[in-house]
Amino acid sequence: HSLVSKVKTVQIMQLISVDCLLQLLYEEWANYSVFYKYQPIGLVRKYFGEKIGLYFAWLGLYTQMLIPASVVGVIVFLYGCATVDDNIPSMEICHPKNNITMCPLCDRVCSYWKLSTACGTARASHLFDNPTTVFFSIFMALWAAMFMEHWKRRQMRLNYEWDLTGFEEEEDHPRAEYEFKVMQKSLRKDKKSHHKVSTMEKLTCRDRLPAYMANIVMMLLMIGVTFAIVFGVILYRISTKAALHMSSSSITRNHVQLTVKTTAAIINLVVILILDEVYGAVARWLTVLEIPKTDKSFEERLIFKTFILKFFNAFTPIIYIAFFRGRLVGRPGSYLYVFESYRMEECAHGGCLMELCIQLSITMLGKQLIQNNLFEIGIPKLKKLIRFIRSKQGAFQEEERQKKLQRYETDHFLEPFAGLTPEYMEMIIQFGFVTLFVASFPLAPLFALLNNIIEIRLDAKKFVTELRRPVAARAKDIGIWYNILKGVAKVAVIINAFVISFTSDFIPRMVYQYTYSPDGSMHGFVNHTLSYFNVSHFQEVTVSLFFCLYRYKDYREPPWSATPYEISKEFWTVLAVRLAFVIVFQNIVMLMSDIVDWLIPDIPKDISLQIHKEKILLVDHFMKEEQRKIHILESRVSTGSKEVFSRSNNNITTMTHSCSQLHTKCTKASNASNDVFIVQS
Amino acid sequence: HSLVSKVKTVQIMQLISVDCLLQLLYEEWANYSVFYKYQPIGLVRKYFGEKIGLYFAWLGLYTQMLIPASVVGVIVFLYGCATVDDNIPSMEICHPKNNITMCPLCDRVCSYWKLSTACGTARASHLFDNPTTVFFSIFMALWAAMFMEHWKRRQMRLNYEWDLTGFEEEEDHPRAEYEFKVMQKSLRKDKKSHHKVSTMEKLTCRDRLPAYMANIVMMLLMIGVTFAIVFGVILYRISTKAALHMSSSSITRNHVQLTVKTTAAIINLVVILILDEVYGAVARWLTVLEIPKTDKSFEERLIFKTFILKFFNAFTPIIYIAFFRGRLVGRPGSYLYVFESYRMEECAHGGCLMELCIQLSITMLGKQLIQNNLFEIGIPKLKKLIRFIRSKQGAFQEEERQKKLQRYETDHFLEPFAGLTPEYMEMIIQFGFVTLFVASFPLAPLFALLNNIIEIRLDAKKFVTELRRPVAARAKDIGIWYNILKGVAKVAVIINAFVISFTSDFIPRMVYQYTYSPDGSMHGFVNHTLSYFNVSHFQEVTVSLFFCLYRYKDYREPPWSATPYEISKEFWTVLAVRLAFVIVFQNIVMLMSDIVDWLIPDIPKDISLQIHKEKILLVDHFMKEEQRKIHILESRVSTGSKEVFSRSNNNITTMTHSCSQLHTKCTKASNASNDVFIVQS
Repeated sequence: HSLVSKVKTVQIMQLISVDCLLQLLYEEWANYSVFYKYQPIGLVRKYFGEKIGLYFAWLGLYTQMLIPASVVGVIVFLYGCATVDDNIPSMEICHPKNNITMCPLCDRVCSYWKLSTACGTARASHLFDNPTTVFFSIFMALWAAMFMEHWKRRQMRLNYEWDLTGFEEEEDHPRAEYEFKVMQKSLRKDKKSHHKVSTMEKLTCRDRLPAYMANIVMMLLMIGVTFAIVFGVILYRISTKAALHMSSSSITRNHVQLTVKTTAAIINLVVILILDEVYGAVARWLTVLEIPKTDKSFEERLIFKTFILKFFNAFTPIIYIAFFRGRLVGRPGSYLYVFESYRMEECAHGGCLMELCIQLSITMLGKQLIQNNLFEIGIPKLKKLIRFIRSKQGAFQEEERQKKLQRYETDHFLEPFAGLTPEYMEMIIQFGFVTLFVASFPLAPLFALLNNIIEIRLDAKKFVTELRRPVAARAKDIGIWYNILKGVAKVAVIINAFVISFTSDFIPRMVYQYTYSPDGSMHGFVNHTLSYFNVSHFQEVTVSLFFCLYRYKDYREPPWSATPYEISKEFWTVLAVRLAFVIVFQNIVMLMSDIVDWLIPDIPKDISLQIHKEKILLVDHFMKEEQRKIHILESRVSTGSKEVFSRSNNNITTMTHSCSQLHTKCTKASNASNDVFIVQS
Repeated sequence: HSLVSKVKTVQIMQLISVDCLLQLLYEEWANYSVFYKYQPIGLVRKYFGEKIGLYFAWLGLYTQMLIPASVVGVIVFLYGCATVDDNIPSMEICHPKNNITMCPLCDRVCSYWKLSTACGTARASHLFDNPTTVFFSIFMALWAAMFMEHWKRRQMRLNYEWDLTGFEEEEDHPRAEYEFKVMQKSLRKDKKSHHKVSTMEKLTCRDRLPAYMANIVMMLLMIGVTFAIVFGVILYRISTKAALHMSSSSITRNHVQLTVKTTAAIINLVVILILDEVYGAVARWLTVLEIPKTDKSFEERLIFKTFILKFFNAFTPIIYIAFFRGRLVGRPGSYLYVFESYRMEECAHGGCLMELCIQLSITMLGKQLIQNNLFEIGIPKLKKLIRFIRSKQGAFQEEERQKKLQRYETDHFLEPFAGLTPEYMEMIIQFGFVTLFVASFPLAPLFALLNNIIEIRLDAKKFVTELRRPVAARAKDIGIWYNILKGVAKVAVIINAFVISFTSDFIPRMVYQYTYSPDGSMHGFVNHTLSYFNVSHFQEVTVSLFFCLYRYKDYREPPWSATPYEISKEFWTVLAVRLAFVIVFQNIVMLMSDIVDWLIPDIPKDISLQIHKEKILLVDHFMKEEQRKIHILESRVSTGSKEVFSRSNNNITTMTHSCSQLHTKCTKASNASNDVFIVQS
């Protein structure tokens, strides 16, 4: 039954002309007004081929899967909003009676400050740092596992619908560059050995060693550049903060934190955008150096390198903020300095989670807005405009001429198709934002969803109207991208475990509540996390103040203990619990992902049943056909007359035909399967 | 070329008669004198079928892979032996000047003891607890990954050699029990609804709910029984130790530790052996309750349940010793008691690693010796003997009669074949011993290797001479066992991480050396790990001694601190480092395993090339055949004479024949592939 409908669909599809198809695509796909509908993947595949069809199917499934993720993310965020007034630590900070004085946040220019001024940040950080975040990270890890499984099933279904189950990628021919290099090598050998060597020469590891070395060195250098730039931004932040604190205008001074954070994040963003382009070029150059054998290998190596570079580029500043910022500051009286004058920056009170959140949202939104909208919409529009202005004078003739041109001739004026790599890369980096640091930014899936709804139609418009029609290519799967996705999902588990246990205050709060708190509540938590410092212990007391104790956020012994300012027992207790949490979280989530992987079968039940049925049907059909033929032959040929002869002659031709048909099918079948049946003569 | 040799092998194999084959197997395989040779897997497959062939191939590869593991294990052990005299902690314990007095190890009867009496244990524990152990655990984790990869490749090679590449398991028929239950259900429905319901009834989850519930409850109960027995052995150990300490004979008192440990381990072993049989029966009964649909599903469910039960049975006592023993003892003055009178046992000085080692070796060796030799050799021999004695009187007639019997008739007197499950299960549990706790017992691979060399020939003898020839079954792979192996290898990583960081003294030593040690050496480590206790703080001072400070192994505050006997900062420091080590170890080893998995291709290069070539050859051959036939037909049929007619008639029959041959191949091909080509009529 389903077979009949499938055959019908195929027949209908074959009746549609190319122009009609394009029109249909334009209306039903490359159109913002149908954003809520499923994409017509069958038409896309028909016009652009399987490879591009698979990309849009993948993008569609990803966008679809983002819906539950964003709903849960928004609920988690709203829960944070709703409970912000019940949060005891931030209440304690904001309480008017609270008059804890804190040590200055920078040298010389910064003064001692009241903890109550951090009230706003403390309240805001509760939005992202509450117990539901732990649940949400587990949810997102399982979501990622579920997404992979669903994609495998969708891919299998598409393979069945598009008759790709038997398709096997044929071996690529070597690239011209490779052949040239091989020829050079064999010529060199001929010269040396003075007699003909076998033509089956190939590039060995030794030939490629210089290229590999260059690759490794350049990759390390590029990653080094990323690190250097992140470090530069840190220095910018430290120095600007100090400079702004010295400013005479009080408004400037009051908004120091916000100004510095925002400008630094924007600088980071701009650097990321510029380096993204640079790294793309570097990766291509390095891959050309390597001289891969086939086009497929070239593409895979290029993708791998580009991914590594762009991934480091996008995530290094975020990883710095999440795991290193505020941890290498030393302590009052013996701060840590870089270049002997820049004191390492601290996080504002309430953990670095808030800053991580700002950095994440600016990078993510900025990348999406600028790279997608400016680069993908603006630049082609600009190019069109330039072309239009240039040909202003000959406009009428142009138009006349274009009317007479064939479709492929007008297509020539469009941009050439540059491959799917940039499209996939953009989405994978976005997938990284959605999964890697989701513990600190539960709204990421929502932003990704909004972006992708536009992205699908934007890409569709681009493919339909602004690019030349690409050469259709077959593909069974999304290739290396699946492995990269899988890798990102794996890394996400461990990074989220570390974000929850080290960046957020979740563990210290738990430890306080269950071990140190006198009444099992959170009251007194803020006081517990602050250590004492005796101002007279500053080597150079810059601000003249009466002798007193001030506070700073760390677990250290008080000045009156036997070992003043040493790391205290509480620090080690909290650290041990944090690490234990990482182990438990990572292993539980990995186990649950494995269970999801195991519970959801890779091939949908109906498809596997269908395939099985069709196979039986086919064999049955062949059998009957054969028997019928043998029967006809036996009954007619026996008499032996002219008429029968001609008939038998006819039979021969039909049989030859059917046999050759069978043969074609058989070839297809043998192509289709990986299998070999030995002819035992 | 390789194709020709393959076809030749197949032809030769077909020429061998069954009796000759059996003779060959008896000489070349089921023979201890050829233990150093590869098994003749081809012959095994020929006689027993693919499924049993795969088992022996797997066992062979496993044994082969154990060789490097045991060599490295022995080297690690020898390194421990060689450096035992340079080990500063044990030197300090054994030093004659050392007169540290320790708190008693049990209540009332035990006395205070000198640390120097623990000299022997401390020296012995260095054999298994030295820095190379860490290296060896990493090595074994990679070894496991390598083993899995090699097996995948070997399996692929065997599939190719045995022409299984195209073989697909056919769907099983439902089991009779299942059909009966379904019939019952539909009859019940018929009665209720009073009109005929469709015959396509099946068992839903709801029908199976009681069975599932019974399963879960019984499994938990059985695991509970295991735990209870382990707990019972602990109580035995505690009470016997106390009783033996009270003994009047001094020899008994001196060997308390050894006696108790050994008897307890033997009791554990006996319990494990008995419960193994019980659990096998319980698992079968539970699976019958479930009424699985097919035989395959029955087997998988049975295996899964048996594995879970036997795994818990074998490893619960070991896990207790590794991770719980000596950790729940409380502290002097407030010990932890079970049933209010049994004080929880402590480990001897030098960590629990030594005890773990004893337990492991006794369980492993005992299981292997008793289960393999006694059960597998002894019982069949015994049965034979009984049979022989019984038929003593009619012996001559019997012999005469047997001579006249056919082979299948004499076979009837042999044991029936009980499936491969027990054989695989034995090996998987052994694989668990080799990988799970290898950090504490580097000689495990050696023992496993020695056992397996015998095991292969033993199994071979059993299959050839003592069992009825099983019905040959085809199989492409070892099925669920591969997944279980993979699971065990995954669990092994985390368990080894915990053994190294928690059971062994590796981390405390490192922490002492790099943070507390005054001169960066290990001198003073023993003193550092011991806390002080003031005897006057005992609630009931049973042994009258002058007021003094005694020591016990723990990180706690001394009696003179502000918070006496509280857990000290050192404890938390060491704990944090231990947990950090677990995280680092687990993630690095997992990453390395993934890299091994990624570097070694699943299909050997030559096999994939060969398959590709054969496919091209086949298509080529078909094409040529077809063209030749068409050519013949065209040239001859055109003239039209009687002679030609008969020839063409001949041609028809040959063509029909070739066509049907082609058809068979095609069916095979379509069977072989998962693919369907839609007949677009």
